[in-house]
Amino acid sequence: MARYVLKFGGTSVANVTRLQHVAHIIKKQADAGHELVVVVSAMAGITNKLVEYAHSLCPDKLTNEHDVVLSSGEQITSGLLALALSQLGFQSRSYLAWQIPIQTDDTPSQGRISNISTARLEECLRHKRIPVVAGFQGVNSEGRLTTLGRGGSDTTAVALAAALNADRCDIYTDVDGVYNADPRLVANARKLSRITYDEMFEMAAQGAKVLQARSVELAMKHGVKLRVLSSFVETPGTDIVKERENVESTLVSGIAHSQNDVRITIKNIPNHAQSVATIFSHLAENAIPIDMIVQTSVVHDHVDLTFTLLHSNLERAQHVLKEVQKIIPYSQLDIDTDIVKISIIGVGIRSDLNSLQLLFQTLAIHNISVQLMTTSEIKLCVIIDKHHTDVALNALHQAYELEKVAA
Amino acid sequence: MARYVLKFGGTSVANVTRLQHVAHIIKKQADAGHELVVVVSAMAGITNKLVEYAHSLCPDKLTNEHDVVLSSGEQITSGLLALALSQLGFQSRSYLAWQIPIQTDDTPSQGRISNISTARLEECLRHKRIPVVAGFQGVNSEGRLTTLGRGGSDTTAVALAAALNADRCDIYTDVDGVYNADPRLVANARKLSRITYDEMFEMAAQGAKVLQARSVELAMKHGVKLRVLSSFVETPGTDIVKERENVESTLVSGIAHSQNDVRITIKNIPNHAQSVATIFSHLAENAIPIDMIVQTSVVHDHVDLTFTLLHSNLERAQHVLKEVQKIIPYSQLDIDTDIVKISIIGVGIRSDLNSLQLLFQTLAIHNISVQLMTTSEIKLCVIIDKHHTDVALNALHQAYELEKVAA
Repeated sequence: MARYVLKFGGTSVANVTRLQHVAHIIKKQADAGHELVVVVSAMAGITNKLVEYAHSLCPDKLTNEHDVVLSSGEQITSGLLALALSQLGFQSRSYLAWQIPIQTDDTPSQGRISNISTARLEECLRHKRIPVVAGFQGVNSEGRLTTLGRGGSDTTAVALAAALNADRCDIYTDVDGVYNADPRLVANARKLSRITYDEMFEMAAQGAKVLQARSVELAMKHGVKLRVLSSFVETPGTDIVKERENVESTLVSGIAHSQNDVRITIKNIPNHAQSVATIFSHLAENAIPIDMIVQTSVVHDHVDLTFTLLHSNLERAQHVLKEVQKIIPYSQLDIDTDIVKISIIGVGIRSDLNSLQLLFQTLAIHNISVQLMTTSEIKLCVIIDKHHTDVALNALHQAYELEKVAA
Repeated sequence: MARYVLKFGGTSVANVTRLQHVAHIIKKQADAGHELVVVVSAMAGITNKLVEYAHSLCPDKLTNEHDVVLSSGEQITSGLLALALSQLGFQSRSYLAWQIPIQTDDTPSQGRISNISTARLEECLRHKRIPVVAGFQGVNSEGRLTTLGRGGSDTTAVALAAALNADRCDIYTDVDGVYNADPRLVANARKLSRITYDEMFEMAAQGAKVLQARSVELAMKHGVKLRVLSSFVETPGTDIVKERENVESTLVSGIAHSQNDVRITIKNIPNHAQSVATIFSHLAENAIPIDMIVQTSVVHDHVDLTFTLLHSNLERAQHVLKEVQKIIPYSQLDIDTDIVKISIIGVGIRSDLNSLQLLFQTLAIHNISVQLMTTSEIKLCVIIDKHHTDVALNALHQAYELEKVAA
């Protein structure tokens, strides 16, 4: 007998038929004698609808009330799936974050889990019941509801797996595993049978939608075994592991891309030591994370600052930066929404000069200019014009010989 | 300065524009210096959608999971309205039942409020904040979510008004007050400027949808002043009061009707003393309330039993009665869904023989036969064929001279 956390994403629970199908997947594991804790996302589409409501009433900031509204989506699914399991003859009940509780810090919309009490879930398991936990949500020190950021149900699942010492955390989704590039855009994309935590983290952080990056980080930290698999078709899926057996054989494990970013350039910032720091601290106070940053062209004591952030934060960021202009009188704000971020991911990639050269060479052959670039131990990351997405992805996939990767 | 509880129903908060309008109604009261506690229903349509989901997964009984699913509708509205009020410059926050808490017994889908802690709401009011409470929901002794039955947000509002010693509880809805008959069906229906608790209770219990019957009962018990008014148009509304000033002048205060009932006849029940009791106790155990009951025609130690129940409970009732047949071998189950229940309501109506005679006379003139009839101190109640609804309502309205009622 093993203990598994099973997490089902929005498309897996999108309607009554899908919920019943998920109940049968769970039944198969339960019948095999395993102890199961289930985590669910909101039914596909619901969260977007709720975000839309909240945004039209309050477009300029995120508050605890946004979390009250948004967390109801997962509440609905947890109740419905518990009902579906009961109909199959299992003892099952829903758990909301405040009933467990899953405690978080106070940051609205981006709460981080600080503690999980396992007593109630352990008791539930002792009584041979299947708990269905509402993902994505938490409760802060004041007893108010919080949410864990987009895709936060993955984090709920991994955090529960760690707290409950589960043997594995299975993430059921609408794709059948992790691919080394987006299979909808790259014909030769290959499904990986295994990938390391590090690589998966970068793939997720750089746009591969299959897992929330924070959940991978958490799994890595607590050594939670992760598996990504489909709730639609029965295929093996991808295991996320500590180390690849033969890490030397393929340096680059995958290519991720994201079209969710926008590039902002602030021009002619008076070069006081404090100016740039002030800009970033205002963005941070408003919970707007920024990604790639480049500071350029000091002219007459003035600097230009370029960075990227999520498209969904653009409206709020513009609002904040307009306010900041009253303190830091910069001359101009340029926004480019037609960009794509492409990331080449592999353990040790920065120390391999060939990889970097190959990247620029391949893009140059296709006349694609790099607008912005950053690197880390494990990835090379470039911003290019959005309409080059397809050409760039396929060319890079071929250049790095990813179609030869043994799955 | 007065303290008011303001309750807004589903159509009043049906979309973002309506929510903003409601925020302005609240602003007007707040600007006048009043202390306000707001209670909200789910946005129109949402509860039906959630009921549909839960019902298709589990059609045969109501459980705590139904409550988990359904209560999310009010959670969404409370968060959204708090956001809308914040945008108008008020300090506001949502309160869910478990955060207050509003405690109920353990009956799923029909919880009754057992206790309300007022400390947190009082503190909220002391800080000049406007609390927006999610109606319809409670939390039971085990910390699980419950709901208070359809229209239960009215009960939440009245119970809060009682617990907080509010000066009045205003129920905002999509009609501009209480009418002595349904104005959509009876052209001469008149809006009442005031109506007694007793009469309002019967009007509500017998199908007038403007208020949940239990909420009127609760208001009567605790002496909470109630006002029914529109969130769509600015008109005076109807006050629900203890006594009418001139109660003799009009005996009959109104006519209510309901098309939500079905009539069930169980034929040839073996007349053991326990049989009928067993049938009713099985229905009660499955939380299926029954309304009008008539036991007829004892033939050879067998009885027929006729009663009405809500259409929404029919499917579950059929399931229960089929099971019961294994214990009580009755011969036949007849179901009639084409019925309407019409109720003539007025203080002291049963002791007035003219009223009863007038009812039968009026229906007879129009060749409408009475299928079932019950009376109480304050109402006469008949079941007739549904397609006579319009004719019967208008004829009775004229017969009882309700068009002459001084509003």
